[in-house]
Amino acid sequence: MRTTITVELGPRRYPIHIGRHLLGEIPRLLAQTGTGSQLMLVTNPAVHDLYGRSLADALTRAGYRVATALVPDGEQAKSLQQAAALYDAAFAARLDRQSAVLALGGGVVGDLAGFFAATYLRGLPFIQLPTTLLAQVDSSVGGKVAINHPGAKNIIGAFYQPRLVVADLATLSSLPRREIGTGLAEVIKYGVIADGEFFAWLEQNMLRLVQLDPAALAVAVEKSCRIKARVVGQDEREQGQRAILNFGHTAGHALEAVTGYAVYRHGEAVAIGMMVAARLAVALSMMDLPQARRLQRLLQMAGLPVTLPEGIAVEDLITAMQHDKKIISGRLTFVLPASFPGHVVLQHITDFALLADVLRASRYEL
Amino acid sequence: MRTTITVELGPRRYPIHIGRHLLGEIPRLLAQTGTGSQLMLVTNPAVHDLYGRSLADALTRAGYRVATALVPDGEQAKSLQQAAALYDAAFAARLDRQSAVLALGGGVVGDLAGFFAATYLRGLPFIQLPTTLLAQVDSSVGGKVAINHPGAKNIIGAFYQPRLVVADLATLSSLPRREIGTGLAEVIKYGVIADGEFFAWLEQNMLRLVQLDPAALAVAVEKSCRIKARVVGQDEREQGQRAILNFGHTAGHALEAVTGYAVYRHGEAVAIGMMVAARLAVALSMMDLPQARRLQRLLQMAGLPVTLPEGIAVEDLITAMQHDKKIISGRLTFVLPASFPGHVVLQHITDFALLADVLRASRYEL
Repeated sequence: MRTTITVELGPRRYPIHIGRHLLGEIPRLLAQTGTGSQLMLVTNPAVHDLYGRSLADALTRAGYRVATALVPDGEQAKSLQQAAALYDAAFAARLDRQSAVLALGGGVVGDLAGFFAATYLRGLPFIQLPTTLLAQVDSSVGGKVAINHPGAKNIIGAFYQPRLVVADLATLSSLPRREIGTGLAEVIKYGVIADGEFFAWLEQNMLRLVQLDPAALAVAVEKSCRIKARVVGQDEREQGQRAILNFGHTAGHALEAVTGYAVYRHGEAVAIGMMVAARLAVALSMMDLPQARRLQRLLQMAGLPVTLPEGIAVEDLITAMQHDKKIISGRLTFVLPASFPGHVVLQHITDFALLADVLRASRYEL
Repeated sequence: MRTTITVELGPRRYPIHIGRHLLGEIPRLLAQTGTGSQLMLVTNPAVHDLYGRSLADALTRAGYRVATALVPDGEQAKSLQQAAALYDAAFAARLDRQSAVLALGGGVVGDLAGFFAATYLRGLPFIQLPTTLLAQVDSSVGGKVAINHPGAKNIIGAFYQPRLVVADLATLSSLPRREIGTGLAEVIKYGVIADGEFFAWLEQNMLRLVQLDPAALAVAVEKSCRIKARVVGQDEREQGQRAILNFGHTAGHALEAVTGYAVYRHGEAVAIGMMVAARLAVALSMMDLPQARRLQRLLQMAGLPVTLPEGIAVEDLITAMQHDKKIISGRLTFVLPASFPGHVVLQHITDFALLADVLRASRYEL
């Protein structure tokens, strides 16, 4: 079972291959991209042990020279310091403009390696090899690459499309439970923003997904990638429609920032952020309470948190939201469900008292 | 007297306005770009005193909020550390995606501010306001933005086009003598690579240019921008023809690197690099000795150095060239004059013994 989805971006179009045990086919798929014989493989120590070493061996046997750069685990690795370490490694390995950068791992590895690939020698060919559910359904597709600033996540970055994405579903079986949940938050997001039938399918199949049922995972990854590829194909640089992908991310990013990126996994913060957005939609009569509870139930089935922690000051969250990239000419913009599930709208929020009320209420389940 | 040249890059096309006393028109020109009301002005202390303060005042009067970031003078400012300082300043000023970045100054300010603009919030509108001859004829046009790695110049960067370039010729009158020379090296380069008649005009008018004659400067800047705009319009991302703009830069960049960017101004190193390329062309029978001497004479009229210094080991220069961005699949590529003046070709150099001989001979005038 094997699917290929194309992200339609004219001269920058690229394929996403989804299936089990695809890592063994990387040398063949890479040869089709016409990149040079020098490669840089960026991964983290754990993924290197599981898949990186054998991938590097296979590439070496296929005639490639492979420089491997290991980056630490965790969101803190998306730093200017780690980018500088990759520049040093690339300089030492004498990469040239034909040298491909392979990102093998989760969102952290993909975002950091992508930022490096976008900015070294003014842009190297970039290959995404996502090994987590979050990376396979979200971060590896669409060309957003970034590192973090101490004050806000992902604000240093670029739009830089990969040449190729290979999502090997077999790598998901080695994922810790919590990593599956963080990916499922983004999967649920796709149902809310673009596909009510998919949302209903998720309600029926969440238990299978949590248990890593291969057939269910294949459906979830493929469906998610199709939705993301369609949205990105229509709006590569987030000048309009693409912003719907940020559902749950306005409050989610703020929560990650005020907790120092140390408490919540990205998807967990997004899950809480989706509930903040749903409550805001209820307060604005765009959604009714039973619908918001339906979203809350699905998130809980995926093992995700749905409430803000007690200890966080509402004012700190609102301040962090001010730094959101989606701020347009000083106005805070939320993605809110409308005709739930399957449809969202962009909504400027100017009533900060209402927002504060919603955030305070978000400390308790609906 | 005022000229507008358009760089034809489809959706990324932009105008270059060239004339005297254009800085006063920036508020009006900026309004036409449709950017937001928050701006970031990047400049250095000397240029800030000369033009920055009054420009910021004029923009404030026109209703803009202006955050000013001062960067140190000199090539050393093109560092990851200075980029980090700009990210901090932008975060503090709460720039959003509509906030324009104005680079007021020479190539260092433009390259650094451009790298910052390309990578903050995945890309801010970027405006080039070059105040040196080098920046007006070369670095502000074409979308190459970059910072330096300790090992090589400009290897961390992107292709990121400005929305607008305004070259105010009146700012050239405040330039130190040595700054004029470094710009004239690039002007001479355009004659060699693309326009034999312009080369002959430069031979006739070099004295006027060195003396900052306004009419002669206007011709030189306009002609140079036209040639660069044409080359860039045909090959934005340097996949072919654009590489001719690197004439003199292979040895020039290497010389800058081995002298720690501290001895030569960019154009001075490029002048020496052009003579290295000319000697290589003579050695390969692509150019004759009188032609190479003609180039040497024009460079000397512009007050530029034409020989490599005694103390530099030829081996170190060749090692530095290996890190050149134009290295293609491990092969060193030079831009060499052919049918001089007005035409060049890309030439792979594999005979390193010949290259070493040419470099040793380049310590002495022809």
